Amino acid sequence: MRSHSCPATSEITPERVFHALSDPVRLEIVRDLARLGAATCAEVTYDRPKSSMSHHFKVLREAGLVHSRGEGVHLINSLRREDLDERFPGLLDAVLGAIGTTDQDAS
Amino acid sequence: MRSHSCPATSEITPERVFHALSDPVRLEIVRDLARLGAATCAEVTYDRPKSSMSHHFKVLREAGLVHSRGEGVHLINSLRREDLDERFPGLLDAVLGAIGTTDQDAS
Repeated sequence: MRSHSCPATSEITPERVFHALSDPVRLEIVRDLARLGAATCAEVTYDRPKSSMSHHFKVLREAGLVHSRGEGVHLINSLRREDLDERFPGLLDAVLGAIGTTDQDAS
Repeated sequence: MRSHSCPATSEITPERVFHALSDPVRLEIVRDLARLGAATCAEVTYDRPKSSMSHHFKVLREAGLVHSRGEGVHLINSLRREDLDERFPGLLDAVLGAIGTTDQDAS
């Protein structure tokens, strides 16, 4: 089992978290991971180019939002809920609420 | 009295808000405006270059985070607390909490 590098909880910074959330594709990944719990890259990337999605996952991991671990040929991705709640209480829930609100408006 | 353009509450998007919050100088402005309530640019820019700060305020305004109105020769800036709370409940409080947490860690 491989595990991709990501910052320790105490090293997660607000500006990197917000940068990671400043892109609509990455917001979609975050929302889908919140819904699915854990997912392979393929399950949340749909038909988007693999190189582009690799970059987005890298940004999310380096910001401390997403944890990815290798299982066989797959990468299993999940939100770092507990770490984020510990570091910035209430932030992830508010972010997920904000994303959901937008969806409701668009429907 | 002049008022600088900014999006209507319903047009505020998560990705633009998060982009505006992805810079440490803009986070500092947001934190200072939360503390001061309303402030001229000079009161929250310290010794930073005016052109750079004008850009940061423009990004914050265009994202819907900050409202600026001209009074005489001054621009008075404030957070759009009510608009943001209406659009994304709990988000601004969580953001301000995240910024404060980081400060405590650094002290």
